[in-house]
Amino acid sequence: MTSTRAIVSHGSYKTGGWKLQDITLRSLQEKELLVEIVASGVCQTDLHFGGAEFGFGVHYPRVMGHEGAGYIHEIGPGTTAFQVGDPVILSFSACQSCETCTRGHPAHCFHFDPINFEVAWDDTHVFTSSSDPSPIYGKFFGQSSFASYSIVRADSVINVRGLVASREELQLLSPLGCGIQTGSGAILNAAQVSAEDRIAVLGLGGVGLSAVMGAKIAGCKQVIGIDRHASRLELAKELGATHVLQVDPAADIQAVSEAVRAMTGGLGVNVVLDTTGVPALIAQGVKMAGCKGKILQVGTAPPTATLEIPIHEFMVSGKQFMGVVEGDVNPKEYVPKMVKWVQEGTLPLQRIVTFYKAEEFEKAIADMQSGQTIKPVILW
Amino acid sequence: MTSTRAIVSHGSYKTGGWKLQDITLRSLQEKELLVEIVASGVCQTDLHFGGAEFGFGVHYPRVMGHEGAGYIHEIGPGTTAFQVGDPVILSFSACQSCETCTRGHPAHCFHFDPINFEVAWDDTHVFTSSSDPSPIYGKFFGQSSFASYSIVRADSVINVRGLVASREELQLLSPLGCGIQTGSGAILNAAQVSAEDRIAVLGLGGVGLSAVMGAKIAGCKQVIGIDRHASRLELAKELGATHVLQVDPAADIQAVSEAVRAMTGGLGVNVVLDTTGVPALIAQGVKMAGCKGKILQVGTAPPTATLEIPIHEFMVSGKQFMGVVEGDVNPKEYVPKMVKWVQEGTLPLQRIVTFYKAEEFEKAIADMQSGQTIKPVILW
Repeated sequence: MTSTRAIVSHGSYKTGGWKLQDITLRSLQEKELLVEIVASGVCQTDLHFGGAEFGFGVHYPRVMGHEGAGYIHEIGPGTTAFQVGDPVILSFSACQSCETCTRGHPAHCFHFDPINFEVAWDDTHVFTSSSDPSPIYGKFFGQSSFASYSIVRADSVINVRGLVASREELQLLSPLGCGIQTGSGAILNAAQVSAEDRIAVLGLGGVGLSAVMGAKIAGCKQVIGIDRHASRLELAKELGATHVLQVDPAADIQAVSEAVRAMTGGLGVNVVLDTTGVPALIAQGVKMAGCKGKILQVGTAPPTATLEIPIHEFMVSGKQFMGVVEGDVNPKEYVPKMVKWVQEGTLPLQRIVTFYKAEEFEKAIADMQSGQTIKPVILW
Repeated sequence: MTSTRAIVSHGSYKTGGWKLQDITLRSLQEKELLVEIVASGVCQTDLHFGGAEFGFGVHYPRVMGHEGAGYIHEIGPGTTAFQVGDPVILSFSACQSCETCTRGHPAHCFHFDPINFEVAWDDTHVFTSSSDPSPIYGKFFGQSSFASYSIVRADSVINVRGLVASREELQLLSPLGCGIQTGSGAILNAAQVSAEDRIAVLGLGGVGLSAVMGAKIAGCKQVIGIDRHASRLELAKELGATHVLQVDPAADIQAVSEAVRAMTGGLGVNVVLDTTGVPALIAQGVKMAGCKGKILQVGTAPPTATLEIPIHEFMVSGKQFMGVVEGDVNPKEYVPKMVKWVQEGTLPLQRIVTFYKAEEFEKAIADMQSGQTIKPVILW
């Protein structure tokens, strides 16, 4: 039995349920890998599923974490694509056999929810504490990487052997497999933008700023970053936004789309990316899109929230509203591309990452929630 | 001054405002062609703009008609792509210079509405009656083809010289430029379907049946035709529907999406095409779409109708709701393709077309409204 340090969520984060502690790992099963985690990004989704008392995908005790990177420590049966010592970046899991998976859209896998969020898809009794033999669940997003060692579903693992030279570099790259691919992939892969496009990004957290960096990689002629916080607008400009717009929560929300229309000479934008999940802002997104404009929904809206689309106007203008998870990328292909962009300097990840020691995880989360840190990464 | 017979809409159709009469045409101006019309399909859109007392795009007296075909009779200044005698099929007009036009999407032209429906874009005083010198407007959809001769905007004209041999063939092909391209183009061009796709078509009028024929051309593995009328379901099966579903207006509308889900083994369809414009059916369309399913809005909904989209569910499933006009095709490229499909027998247009003499236009409209005729075509 391997020992590991891990942040165990015994209950919701807001009730103080998360504890850094020493636990043990069971032995490997079919298509599992034991990964020595070097770093793991923190994402709002960890706090979504580890922040509620109950509900879909809420299971305690469990180890969260889904932006991990590390080295292969041991290889389970039925897996041949790895060698011990390979550097790897972890991403989400998918069944690899349903219609959307076989068509190259694993992020919209029929079984995405049970595989990534539930505990009954395969054996998720990964961890055990010495004081209590009952399960501590693993395999959150196939990985549960808030741990110095974790058992990972092989299909969550992207081998970057030959691409990544040092442990320090691998630490920086850990968030590629979720937040960074969600933003940049939505722009570059799902929206298929070109240099001729005008883009608006609603919300400039890790996902939104990754979208801005993606739009800069594509050379989009106008990139409008929209947020409430002035500091994020400044950072967006440094990362590639050509225009920024500060949302004033006290003002009429209608002002947001009007300002974007004015910035684009009345044409509207070709692509809107919503990372906020705020229905009133999404409705503004629909209004700021021009003819044939695409509105990409990337942010998590409240479960019962709806968007009212004016059917006839939508038809005439040829707009598209589309849902996109994880940039609709195939991480096996897309993560290595991002690694190269980081190395070339076109995806300046270090501008949004702040490192924290494992024992500082509460500070990492507090800094993310206050907006002081865009993308906290926990080092193991 | 050229004389012409024409159906002149002096007021709304329902108040008896449409009259077949002899009128005259002015001389040609820049980028206009005088076309001897051999046939013109009747479409609900003629009755939309020529059926109201007032409102956007309602102008009397005017000659409607926007599915014309004929021969070039005279060529105005500034036009070089035609010779007198060329057989032509007429389609909609676009500015050819805005962003969406230059990107190859003329049906979503910034100026589509004023060019095709209004009378102030260019000189639409095309016709005059001998008894009253005031204007009878032309250039509805750039063509006003309910006339034996009409003055047509050159950009509405597709030259089919060398493709179409006889007057009879040209008569059959007249509706290609609107209804047929709207349905088949939405499936083949906008949705980019493949043989692996399951398709549902809501509403089996001329547009819906053209979509069914388009899906058959693509070899879609499942094509579900949905309508209230049993006769249309039978025709849909003959034209390529693999499954049909009769909507019972007395039953719970929810039954529609449930039946489609059952027909697809619970997966839902990959593409839904709504040709009805009925909001409750469109909402069913969203429900019958599976993961990464596209819902194409082709039918004209009431101006203030809205669709309520569940934001989170839409994001997770990766659905897309998109507005599509005229199949989002470039008619210059797409109409010649359809001509070949008709000639090869893969687009069996004769199965949905019924011919009427010009003096029978009221019967043509009555038969379309009763559902007895799918696509009435008026012969000149």
